[in-house]
Amino acid sequence: MTTQEILIQAKNAAQVPALLTEGEKNKALSAMADALESHAGEILYENRLDLEAARGVISSVMLDRLMLNEARIRDMADGIRAIVKLPDPVGRVLLESVTKEGLKIRKVSVPMGVVAIIYESRPNVTSDAAALCLKSGNACVLRGGREAYRTSRAIAEAMREALEGLGIDKAVVSMVEDTSRQSSLDLMKARGFVDLLIPRGGAGLIRACVENASVPCIETGTGICAVYVDEAADTDMALAVIDNAKTQRPSVCNAEETLLVNEKIAAFFLPMLKKRLVDDRAAAGKQPVELRLCEKALHVIPGTPASEEDFDTEFLDYILAVRVVADVREAVAHIAKHSTHHSEAIITKDEAAAAYFTSRVDSAAVYVNASTRFTDGGKFGLGCEMGISTQKLHARGPMGLEELTSYKYVITGEGQVRGG
Amino acid sequence: MTTQEILIQAKNAAQVPALLTEGEKNKALSAMADALESHAGEILYENRLDLEAARGVISSVMLDRLMLNEARIRDMADGIRAIVKLPDPVGRVLLESVTKEGLKIRKVSVPMGVVAIIYESRPNVTSDAAALCLKSGNACVLRGGREAYRTSRAIAEAMREALEGLGIDKAVVSMVEDTSRQSSLDLMKARGFVDLLIPRGGAGLIRACVENASVPCIETGTGICAVYVDEAADTDMALAVIDNAKTQRPSVCNAEETLLVNEKIAAFFLPMLKKRLVDDRAAAGKQPVELRLCEKALHVIPGTPASEEDFDTEFLDYILAVRVVADVREAVAHIAKHSTHHSEAIITKDEAAAAYFTSRVDSAAVYVNASTRFTDGGKFGLGCEMGISTQKLHARGPMGLEELTSYKYVITGEGQVRGG
Repeated sequence: MTTQEILIQAKNAAQVPALLTEGEKNKALSAMADALESHAGEILYENRLDLEAARGVISSVMLDRLMLNEARIRDMADGIRAIVKLPDPVGRVLLESVTKEGLKIRKVSVPMGVVAIIYESRPNVTSDAAALCLKSGNACVLRGGREAYRTSRAIAEAMREALEGLGIDKAVVSMVEDTSRQSSLDLMKARGFVDLLIPRGGAGLIRACVENASVPCIETGTGICAVYVDEAADTDMALAVIDNAKTQRPSVCNAEETLLVNEKIAAFFLPMLKKRLVDDRAAAGKQPVELRLCEKALHVIPGTPASEEDFDTEFLDYILAVRVVADVREAVAHIAKHSTHHSEAIITKDEAAAAYFTSRVDSAAVYVNASTRFTDGGKFGLGCEMGISTQKLHARGPMGLEELTSYKYVITGEGQVRGG
Repeated sequence: MTTQEILIQAKNAAQVPALLTEGEKNKALSAMADALESHAGEILYENRLDLEAARGVISSVMLDRLMLNEARIRDMADGIRAIVKLPDPVGRVLLESVTKEGLKIRKVSVPMGVVAIIYESRPNVTSDAAALCLKSGNACVLRGGREAYRTSRAIAEAMREALEGLGIDKAVVSMVEDTSRQSSLDLMKARGFVDLLIPRGGAGLIRACVENASVPCIETGTGICAVYVDEAADTDMALAVIDNAKTQRPSVCNAEETLLVNEKIAAFFLPMLKKRLVDDRAAAGKQPVELRLCEKALHVIPGTPASEEDFDTEFLDYILAVRVVADVREAVAHIAKHSTHHSEAIITKDEAAAAYFTSRVDSAAVYVNASTRFTDGGKFGLGCEMGISTQKLHARGPMGLEELTSYKYVITGEGQVRGG
C-alpha cells in the first residue's frame, strides 16, 4: 500500500481506540503482548534476515541494537504488560465549572488521533510506540528504519493479528511500507491525517522534521548536557556524578557532553578529574575518556585542545568537552549559548548558587547535586516513555501517556445564547 | 532596526520578565495601562494618519476595527488592568514527587521565553498581547498589520516608555519595524529566537504559518462551526441558538457557518428557520441571512443552491450553509469532513444523541443545547484570551495565561548517580 493509503486507513481507524473502554484497551494490549511471544519464531526469522543484510552496512553498536533473541522479545512483551498497569490517560476531567449563564463546562482529556513515529533500528520501539498509542486512545503510523524493516513488520503483524482477533480494526497499528526518505517526508506533510509526529533519532532526523513538517511535531532527544562544578562543590560528589553522567552509558541523550568548572577550584579539581576519567579507567582496563580542554584547563592538565565546535557537539562517546568558567553566571551563559535544553546539573553546597542555576537554566530537567542520567520516563515516575521532548510547546522532558493526549471542552446548556 | 536585530534584543531581554516577581509584573502592567491613557493624544494622532492612509484601501468594517477614540483607549488600558488581577501563571508547582533514589522532583511552570504574534489591524491586540506575555513572564515580538502600523507603534512606545521608567528593559515589548511580508517569514523561521509563534488573522495567514514555520506555532481562529438540529430537538431552542450563533456577530470565528438538520424534522423545521432568519429579519429592517441549501432542503424552502465548497467556507457574513442529514451519525460524519475543529453544537433532548455527538466530534468546544458563540476566554473563565487554538498540541480552544507557559523539572539530590 502507498503511504497515502495507509494514512487514510489509520485516520479512519482512529476513532476505534478513542472509544474503547479502559478494560477493552488493556485486553487488547495483553493480547498484543502474548502475540509477540507466540510469534517469536517468525520475528526471530525476519530479524536474522535483517541482520544478515545489515552486516557490514551499519556499525556493530547498531547491529546489537537491531538484534533480537527470545529474552529481548519477552522484554518487549513485558514492556506492553507494564503499560496495561498504567492508569488510562483518556477521559480524565481536567477542569469543571459552571458559567454565570449556567453553562456546565468540562475540560476532558482526549486522544490526539493519529500519532506518527519516525524512528531508527531498535525493534522494541515498534511495540512500545504501538502500545503507548493504543493505551492513550490513538492510532499509530510507524515508520521504522530501513535496516530493521522486516523485524518491525513481523512485530507489527503479530500485534495487528491480535487486534483483529478481538474484532478491532488492525489499521489502529499501521506501518509504512515505503522505507525510502519519501515516506518520512509524506508523514511530515500529512496535514489532516497526522495529529502528532514524533521523530526519534539523531540530530539529522530531528532537524529534517522541524524544517519540513507542516503537521504538529515534537522535537525529541538531542542532548548536549552540561554539568557545572561550583566553587562550593563537594568535589568527591562532583567526580562521582561526572563519572556516572559521562561513562555509565555514553550513547544516550541524557549523558554528559560538557563539563564547566569554576576557576577557583580548577587547579585542584582538574587533576582529580583526569585521574578518575582517564588514568583510573585506563588502569582498570576501561576505555579512558578523551578530555577536550579549553585553554585555561590546558594550563592545569594535559588533553586535547577543545575547539568551539566541541561545545556544540553531542559526542555520544567517551569524550568530554571541558571549560573553566569564572562563576555560576558564566556557566549559565555558556549553557544558554550551547545547550540543547535537555538536562543540565550544578554540583554545589551553596543554596544561592543552586537557586541561581535552577531559575535561569532553560532546560527540560535542571539538577542540583545529581546525575543528568536520571532524565527518563521510568525514573520520573511516568511508568513509560515515548521520547524526551526538548521543546517547550505541549510536552517537555520525558513524555508518557498523558503527553500523548489533548483535551476538549464539552459544554452543556439549556438553550443559552450569548448577549454581549 | 532589522527584524533580526529586534529578535536578538528580545531574546536577550527574555530573562527579565521570567525573573520578575508577581508584584513587579503587576506594577509594570499598571504603569503600561496608565501610559496608554497619558499618551492618548499621540496614539490618536498616529491613528488618524493610519486611517487617512487606509481609507479606500481597506473595507469599512476593517476601518472601524482600526479606528480609535478616547473610549477605546480607556478600554485597552482597562483590559491591561484586568490582567493585573489574574493569578500569576509562572512558578506554579504542577507536580512534586520523591523517587526511590531519594531525588526530589518538582515540575514547575515557566515562561515560554519569546512569544511572537503576527496579527492584523485591531490596535487593541498590541496592548492585549504585550500585557498577556508580560504577565506570563514572556518577552513579546509584535508584528501587526501594515495599515495599523503607526497606531500600533504609538501604543507599543507608550508601554515601552512605562517599562523603561521602572528600569525594565523595553525590549521585553518589541515590535517589528518591517511591515512587508518578509518580516512575517523572518519570524516563522527564527529558530532559537522565537519560542512560540501565534498567528492571529485570516485563513491565509494561518496557512502560511503552518506551511512555513520552523518555530513552534499554534494555529488559531479559523472557525467553520456547525450546529446540528436533532430529531429530538426543542425547535424553539434550536431557532434561538441558530439565530444567535449566526447573526449576533457574524464576523467572528465562533459564529455558525453550517446548519445540519435531521431529515425527520426538516419539512417542519426549515420553514420556521426561513421565517426567523430571512422573513422576520427583513421585516424588522435587519439584514436577512442568505440560506445556501442542499438539494433536500431546496425541496422544502426556497434559497440559493449550496455548492460543496459552501460547506468548507468560513463566510464571516450573513450566509448560512444548510444540509439535511439522515441522523446524528451523518451529522458527525459531515463535521469530521468539513469542520475546522473549533466549535460545534447539537440541539437535542435525547441524551444518547448528545453523548454520541460529544464523544465523537473532534473539536475544541462541543456544545449541547447552547450557542457556539460562547467559545471565548472570558466566557470560559480564563479572564482573558490570546486567541483560540484549533490544534490539539499544547493548547486547544481559548488560550489564556496558562497556555503561554511551559514547564521544567527541577531535581534536587545529594549526589545520586544512576545504576541500571
